Amino acid sequence: MSKERLYLFDTTLRDGQQTQGVQFSLEEKHEIAAMLDGLGIDYIEGGWPGANPTDSEFFDAPPQLGHATFLAFGMTKRAGRSAANDEVLAGVVNAGTPAVCLVGKSHDFHVTTALGVSLEENLAAIADSVSHLVSLGREAIYDAEHFFDGYKANSDYALACLQAALEAGARWVVLCDTNGGTLPAEIGEITRAVIAAGVPGDRLGIHTHNDTGNAVAGTLAAIDAGARQIQGTLNGLGERCGNANLVSLIPTLLLKEPYASRYETAVTPEGLASLTRASRMMDDILNRVPFRGAPYVGASAFAHKAGLHASAMLKDPSTYEHVDPSLVGNERIIPMSNQAGQSNLRRRLEEAGLVVEPGDPALGRILDLVKAREAAGYSYDTAQASFELLARRELGQLPRFFTIDRYRVVVERRKNRFGETISLSEAVVVLFIGGEKRLSVSESLDETGSDRGPVNALSRALAKDLGPLQPFVEDMKLVDFKVRITNGGTEAVTRVIIDSEDSSGRHWSTVGVSANIVDASFEALLEAIQWKLLRDGAPAS
Amino acid sequence: MSKERLYLFDTTLRDGQQTQGVQFSLEEKHEIAAMLDGLGIDYIEGGWPGANPTDSEFFDAPPQLGHATFLAFGMTKRAGRSAANDEVLAGVVNAGTPAVCLVGKSHDFHVTTALGVSLEENLAAIADSVSHLVSLGREAIYDAEHFFDGYKANSDYALACLQAALEAGARWVVLCDTNGGTLPAEIGEITRAVIAAGVPGDRLGIHTHNDTGNAVAGTLAAIDAGARQIQGTLNGLGERCGNANLVSLIPTLLLKEPYASRYETAVTPEGLASLTRASRMMDDILNRVPFRGAPYVGASAFAHKAGLHASAMLKDPSTYEHVDPSLVGNERIIPMSNQAGQSNLRRRLEEAGLVVEPGDPALGRILDLVKAREAAGYSYDTAQASFELLARRELGQLPRFFTIDRYRVVVERRKNRFGETISLSEAVVVLFIGGEKRLSVSESLDETGSDRGPVNALSRALAKDLGPLQPFVEDMKLVDFKVRITNGGTEAVTRVIIDSEDSSGRHWSTVGVSANIVDASFEALLEAIQWKLLRDGAPAS
Repeated sequence: MSKERLYLFDTTLRDGQQTQGVQFSLEEKHEIAAMLDGLGIDYIEGGWPGANPTDSEFFDAPPQLGHATFLAFGMTKRAGRSAANDEVLAGVVNAGTPAVCLVGKSHDFHVTTALGVSLEENLAAIADSVSHLVSLGREAIYDAEHFFDGYKANSDYALACLQAALEAGARWVVLCDTNGGTLPAEIGEITRAVIAAGVPGDRLGIHTHNDTGNAVAGTLAAIDAGARQIQGTLNGLGERCGNANLVSLIPTLLLKEPYASRYETAVTPEGLASLTRASRMMDDILNRVPFRGAPYVGASAFAHKAGLHASAMLKDPSTYEHVDPSLVGNERIIPMSNQAGQSNLRRRLEEAGLVVEPGDPALGRILDLVKAREAAGYSYDTAQASFELLARRELGQLPRFFTIDRYRVVVERRKNRFGETISLSEAVVVLFIGGEKRLSVSESLDETGSDRGPVNALSRALAKDLGPLQPFVEDMKLVDFKVRITNGGTEAVTRVIIDSEDSSGRHWSTVGVSANIVDASFEALLEAIQWKLLRDGAPAS
Repeated sequence: MSKERLYLFDTTLRDGQQTQGVQFSLEEKHEIAAMLDGLGIDYIEGGWPGANPTDSEFFDAPPQLGHATFLAFGMTKRAGRSAANDEVLAGVVNAGTPAVCLVGKSHDFHVTTALGVSLEENLAAIADSVSHLVSLGREAIYDAEHFFDGYKANSDYALACLQAALEAGARWVVLCDTNGGTLPAEIGEITRAVIAAGVPGDRLGIHTHNDTGNAVAGTLAAIDAGARQIQGTLNGLGERCGNANLVSLIPTLLLKEPYASRYETAVTPEGLASLTRASRMMDDILNRVPFRGAPYVGASAFAHKAGLHASAMLKDPSTYEHVDPSLVGNERIIPMSNQAGQSNLRRRLEEAGLVVEPGDPALGRILDLVKAREAAGYSYDTAQASFELLARRELGQLPRFFTIDRYRVVVERRKNRFGETISLSEAVVVLFIGGEKRLSVSESLDETGSDRGPVNALSRALAKDLGPLQPFVEDMKLVDFKVRITNGGTEAVTRVIIDSEDSSGRHWSTVGVSANIVDASFEALLEAIQWKLLRDGAPAS
C-alpha cells in the first residue's frame, strides 16, 4: 500500500516567539532554521517581516535551506484598499520568500467585532490577498483564525472563508484553534465535516494550541479525519500554553500505528535520531532546563525507577517501553543497573577517540565521577570537551600544559573626573609553564572603549601570555557563554557553559560550576584552552 | 437531564512518587493528602505499605480526610499460597485502609514471562485476592496492568482478568496503559469493546501515561467510551513521562462541553478555584519552578503577548480565552514586549495602579522606551516590577530614595597559607541618602564559610546600611537569580532577572542588562530594592 504524504510546518520562529519571555536573536533564528531543515521539516515560518527589527533583518538575510520551504507570515489585506496597496501586506510580500502564510478571520463574530467590516468584505480580503500572492508566483497558505469556534457559530461562513482562499489559489487552508479550547473529538468531527463539504484533505492543515493539554491529540484527530499539513513548534513553544509539540508528534507519526504504515514525511531515520539533541539545543538556546518528563526526548522518558519495572526491563525492554529510545536519539536509564551506564559510557569515549575495553575498572570510576559531578551541578550533555578532559584525567591521558597559581578580578563602577559613570574590570592571572612563573593583566575595555565585564578581562588575561603555548591559542574565539543557576546538592550554584571555536572551524563546549560566577567562568575558560592545546598537540610542561 | 457521576482517583503519592528525583517526606504526604481532599478528589492512593519506611509510617498515622476514601496499593497474591497467607498482601491489608487497590497482570505474555505462572493461576490469584479484601469489608479496586497491550494480544484473556475481579466483588476494574504507548483513538475503541463485552462502565476506570503526550486525551477518550473512574496525579507526576494530569483534566471536565453538561464530580466551584494554588503548592513541595505554560494553571496560560490579540482582548476577553481564568484561580496577563501596542500598555499600567488616559503622549514615550530597552537586551515580560519603575520614572511618579555613588568588587582565587585554594569576593558600595554619604562593605562567605560569589557580596553590601530605609528592606529575600546571554544591539550582553519576596508573601521580578555581569546584577538588585521601598511607602530623600 502506498503511503500518503504528511507535511510538517514549523512555526517556532513565529508563533513560538509568542511564548512569554522568548525573544530570539538573529543568530538564534538562523541556528533554529538550520536545525529544522536538518530534521526534515517541510515548511519553516520565519516570522512577520516588519513586526520588529530582528524579524526584518532575518528576512533580509534569509537562511540557506536544503529541503524546507521558507515562509513569511502576515495578515490578509485590510478592507478599503487593494491587496497591492496594503502596506502591511506589501512588507510581507517584499520579504521575497517562496511561500507566504496569511492569517485571516473565519469566525463571523470576529469579522464584525474585531475587524469591524462586513462578512462580504472579509471574504473579498481573503480572495484578493491570496490572488495577489499567487499572481506574484508565491505559494500561498491561508491560516483560518478561530476556525473551530467560527464553524460552530456559522459553519456556512467559516467554510466560505476556506473556499475563498482555495478558489484564489491557496495551496493550503489551515484550521486554527486559536484560543486552544477545542477538544480532540470535536476537532476530528469538524475536520471531517470540512472535508465532506468539499475541502480536499491534501490541501488542509491543522494548527492547535495546548490550553487543555490536548494539542498533540487534537492534531492526531485532525490527521485521522484527513488533514495533511501539521503546524507545530519545537518543544511546544507558543502563545499561552504553547502550540502542538512537533517533538512529540514526529516520533508518533513515524513509529506508532496506524500512522507509521499509513503516512510518510520528509523526516529520515537519521533526522528522527537527532530529535533528542534538537530538543535540548532548543532549550539551550532558550537557557531553559530541559523538562525531564518530555515525551520521547526527556531525560526521564525511558527511566525505569520502579524496582519491578527495572528487573522486568532487563529480561525484555519491550515490557515497559513502547518504542526503542535509540530511534529518537534518547537513552534508557535504569538507576539500579550499572550495566546500561557502562555501555553508554564506552560509546561516548569512543566518540572522543578513547577506546576502553569492556570491564576496565576505569569505566566504573569515570561513571562514578560523572554522577558525582552532575549531582554537584555539572552537565556533560552539551559540554563534550569537558567530558573528554574528565575521562582523560581519570585514564591518565591528559598532559599538564600549565598550572594556575592565582587570579584576581576587580570590578568597579564610579564617576570619572568629568562626572560620567564608568565601569571597568581588571584581571590578573598568575600561572606556571614549565617551572616559569608568568603574570598577565588585562582590562575589560574593548576596541570601542566599552566595558565587557570581568569574565572578558579574565579570559584575555588568561590567554595573553602563554609563552611557548601562545601560538596554539591565538586563533581561539569565545563564541557563546551560557549561565544557569542550578542546584548543586542543597545549594544554588552557577553553571557556566562556554562554546569556543578556532580558525579551522572546530567548535567545542566546556563547563564550569561554582557558587561564584566568576570562578565558574574561569573553570570553563581553562577547560576550553586545555582542550584546544590537547587537540593541537601542544607540548606538556 | 440528570448528570452521571465521574470519580476522581489520585495516585500522586504512589505512581507520582515514581517520578525521577521525587521522594516525599511523611509531612509532605500529609500536606498533599489534605490538599487533594480539599479539592474534592474521591480516592487518594497513599502508597504501598511496606515498600519503604516513609510509606509504612504514613499508613501507621493516616491522614484525616473529609470527603476522600483513603487507599493502600499492592499486588495480587503470588501463586502457590492463599491470599490470607501472602505476606506482601498481608502488609497491604494490615494498613487498615477502607479501600485497597491491587495491581495484577492481564497481558498473557507478562503472566508467563514476568510472573512465570500459568494463565489459570493468574486468574485464580486475582479472584482470591479480591475476595479476600471483600471478605474483610474493604472496597476493592483491580488495576489491570498492561491492559491495552494485553487486549490486543489476547482479548479473551484480558477480559477474563477483569471478569475474575468483578465476580470476586471488585468495586472497580481499571484499564491501565502501563507503558504509555496506546494512542487516544485506540484507548477509546478498546474501552468501548470492553463495555460491549459486559463490563459495566460505572465499574470501569482508566489509568494512562504521557509517553506520547496524550495522557489527558486518552483519559477523555475512555470517558467518552463510558469509563467512570479517572486515575491521575497532580501536575502529571509519575514514572517516565508521568501520569494523566488531574490539574488539566479537572477544569476540562467541569468547564468544557460535552463534559460539563453530562457529568458531575465532587469538585466544587471553590475547589476548582483553588486549583492554581494547589498546582503551585505541589511545585513548591518539589522545589520545582512551576511550568509557565501549564494548561489552565500556568503563569502564561492566560498571557496574551501578540499585539493583535491584546487589543482584541480589551474589547472582549472571550476572543482569545476559552475559559475565564478566575474559575481556576488563575489570572490574565498582558505582558509587555516589543509586539505590544498602546492598549496593552495602558492595561499593564492599570495593573500597577497607574491610570493614564488614552492619547496621553506619555504612552508613546513609555512604549518607545520599552522598545529601545528590549532592543538593548532588557525583557519586561516577567520583570513587571522593573516595568513599573520604568513607567513611573517616565511619568514623574518615582521618588528618589537614594543615590549610588560607586561600588567596587574584588574576586580572588589564591592559595592560603596551608596551600589550599580558596576563593573570596569582597564588595564596597558607596551611596547617598538625604545628602548623607554611606559606605558599606561585605564579603561573599556564608555562615558555613563557603564563597557565594561577587553578586552575593554586592547584594549584602547594598542592603547592609540603608539608614532610615533599612527597616523597609530587612524582610527582603532574593529567591531566584536567572542569567542569560542575549543580544543588545550588535553586542552580546548579560541579562539578569532577580526574583525577590518579602515577609508578606509578595513576589516581584526585576531586570538588569550589561556586558558586565556584575553590573547587570547590581542594576537588578537596585531595582528590586527600589520597588520594595515604593510599595512600602518609604520616604524619599
